[in-house]
Amino acid sequence: MNGRQVRPDLARIVLWVPIEVRYGDFDVQGHVNNVRYFTYFEQARVEFFSQLRARAREEAAPTAQDGAPTAGAALGPEDIPFVVIRAEAVYRRPITVLAPVVVGLDCARLTHTSMDLRYAVCDQPGGMLYASGTTTITSVDQQSGRPRALPRWARQGAEALLGPVGDGAAGTSRQPA
Amino acid sequence: MNGRQVRPDLARIVLWVPIEVRYGDFDVQGHVNNVRYFTYFEQARVEFFSQLRARAREEAAPTAQDGAPTAGAALGPEDIPFVVIRAEAVYRRPITVLAPVVVGLDCARLTHTSMDLRYAVCDQPGGMLYASGTTTITSVDQQSGRPRALPRWARQGAEALLGPVGDGAAGTSRQPA
Amino acid sequence: MNGRQVRPDLARIVLWVPIEVRYGDFDVQGHVNNVRYFTYFEQARVEFFSQLRARAREEAAPTAQDGAPTAGAALGPEDIPFVVIRAEAVYRRPITVLAPVVVGLDCARLTHTSMDLRYAVCDQPGGMLYASGTTTITSVDQQSGRPRALPRWARQGAEALLGPVGDGAAGTSRQPA
Amino acid sequence: MNGRQVRPDLARIVLWVPIEVRYGDFDVQGHVNNVRYFTYFEQARVEFFSQLRARAREEAAPTAQDGAPTAGAALGPEDIPFVVIRAEAVYRRPITVLAPVVVGLDCARLTHTSMDLRYAVCDQPGGMLYASGTTTITSVDQQSGRPRALPRWARQGAEALLGPVGDGAAGTSRQPA
Repeated sequence: MNGRQVRPDLARIVLWVPIEVRYGDFDVQGHVNNVRYFTYFEQARVEFFSQLRARAREEAAPTAQDGAPTAGAALGPEDIPFVVIRAEAVYRRPITVLAPVVVGLDCARLTHTSMDLRYAVCDQPGGMLYASGTTTITSVDQQSGRPRALPRWARQGAEALLGPVGDGAAGTSRQPA
Repeated sequence: MNGRQVRPDLARIVLWVPIEVRYGDFDVQGHVNNVRYFTYFEQARVEFFSQLRARAREEAAPTAQDGAPTAGAALGPEDIPFVVIRAEAVYRRPITVLAPVVVGLDCARLTHTSMDLRYAVCDQPGGMLYASGTTTITSVDQQSGRPRALPRWARQGAEALLGPVGDGAAGTSRQPA
Repeated sequence: MNGRQVRPDLARIVLWVPIEVRYGDFDVQGHVNNVRYFTYFEQARVEFFSQLRARAREEAAPTAQDGAPTAGAALGPEDIPFVVIRAEAVYRRPITVLAPVVVGLDCARLTHTSMDLRYAVCDQPGGMLYASGTTTITSVDQQSGRPRALPRWARQGAEALLGPVGDGAAGTSRQPA
Repeated sequence: MNGRQVRPDLARIVLWVPIEVRYGDFDVQGHVNNVRYFTYFEQARVEFFSQLRARAREEAAPTAQDGAPTAGAALGPEDIPFVVIRAEAVYRRPITVLAPVVVGLDCARLTHTSMDLRYAVCDQPGGMLYASGTTTITSVDQQSGRPRALPRWARQGAEALLGPVGDGAAGTSRQPA
């Protein structure tokens, strides 16, 4: 993460989320504005958590304290028990055409209370790379705003969906040192 | 257009454009912010014009002066030779769930230089209505900013795609008086 | 409201809210995107309600059921006990320069449960008109989502700030017939 | 830039740009959405370049090839001869109140073709820190899209406004190693 961020290994990414590029995402320079890539990351992240929750619901009736919402529930703050504490994007090639893109999502690091999610914005899965990025999210208690353990559905789901992820400390992180 | 806008006749709509609802479209009240519906209208309109241009390209090699861009061209100001001069939305039911919607699009009025496009935001084609709306767009010369005749590809395409549309003056408009 | 909306009487507007135009408000056509005007309306409306609440707090300690939040409270859904049920903008002249604008705000109609707010986007108070617009907002119960009487602080504040407003039915509305 | 980014030295910042927080910047979690901070950075950056250009215009009649636009010119792509190649934000404390913020701006590194700009989002100049961030921008030729030397007005203006900035290579960068 030294400004010369390593190109992401697209071949390892297993989750690709299609993202609709909007006309309004373009700025006066004629390409997608740099800020919107973080919206694309967010949209991919929300879809990722949605899949994790769906997986959790299928496997077992989650306990209420686990925070996994029931099917068809309206979106509420309780559905996103995470806050972003760091976000980064590296831009490689401008998006100049109004066509959908895909965001590849990977989990680079998993600790007791946080996750590093890594993104690759491409024209198609494994295709031409427009930008890559990382966000660190942390699990917070909705009432106190304090960090707390990641909900089990998120931790187990992440490992089930993406494969084993190291905790950084153990050196098994997917993120290049 | 008296504030008691007639409910749109969903059964007559032939073009439904899927729209991705983004997490960022929700506001602090927990539903999609009222402003974003105009973004949905815009996205549907851009897709509509994209289909009109594709149709024009297929049928004949359009002349340069007609303004129909060639396939695969990057989005540029020249691709949207229209400006919005009026926009309206009537909100019927909040979008509270993070799931795609569809925007039905219809052409309510067609004059020498302008078009009234009518929109219906639903959960699925012909389904539950969240909001309806109208935008009046006018064709402008990119250099002078002055109104000019609608490009032929837009006029003919609109009629081919949506069926015959009156010119308002003649009383054959689809819009209720 | 027949598409030939009367030009607003700028001289009658008493509340002008400065709005910062953002670089990101411009679209690929090189002017402020038509959708953003509704964001400007919203920002002016929020400032208007903020002033109404401040006025209510000064005049008397509002009762809890009146919904007037206490000073310095964080923004929450309970602070905006209104939903927009209709919104309209008429665009007159594009904003092509990145400089602040002002939104003039007026109350055109006041009923038991709703308000029509009218907006004028200008380069300066009473100056060059970029766009005008109207939104109808209605007071809703946060729990049930049902319409309810406008809170007293909103009704009284609107009249105190903007002067007497008719109820539409009585024909004393400020809105031209 | 190792995820434990050093807290910015607010006392050294000489340029503070006021930013209007919009109601629409808040998300369903009740605080300003993480993506919007990049919009705040962008807005501060645009104001920074606007000041640099104003300074250049005052000091000398800039040559056309220097790219400094004339006073009062409408915003165009030629006015922003930069692209963002990297952006990062570290979030420290949520913005939960709808009130203006300020963005402190500093130039951390200056090379022949690029600049690292550093941002601090605070409640007031030198005050409570909500977030910090960095963007690397590079000067590009509008026609070819290729990197080119930073325009003189940008380089000289940055040094005049912010004080001498190292080139990174020389170790005189303001950025902690």
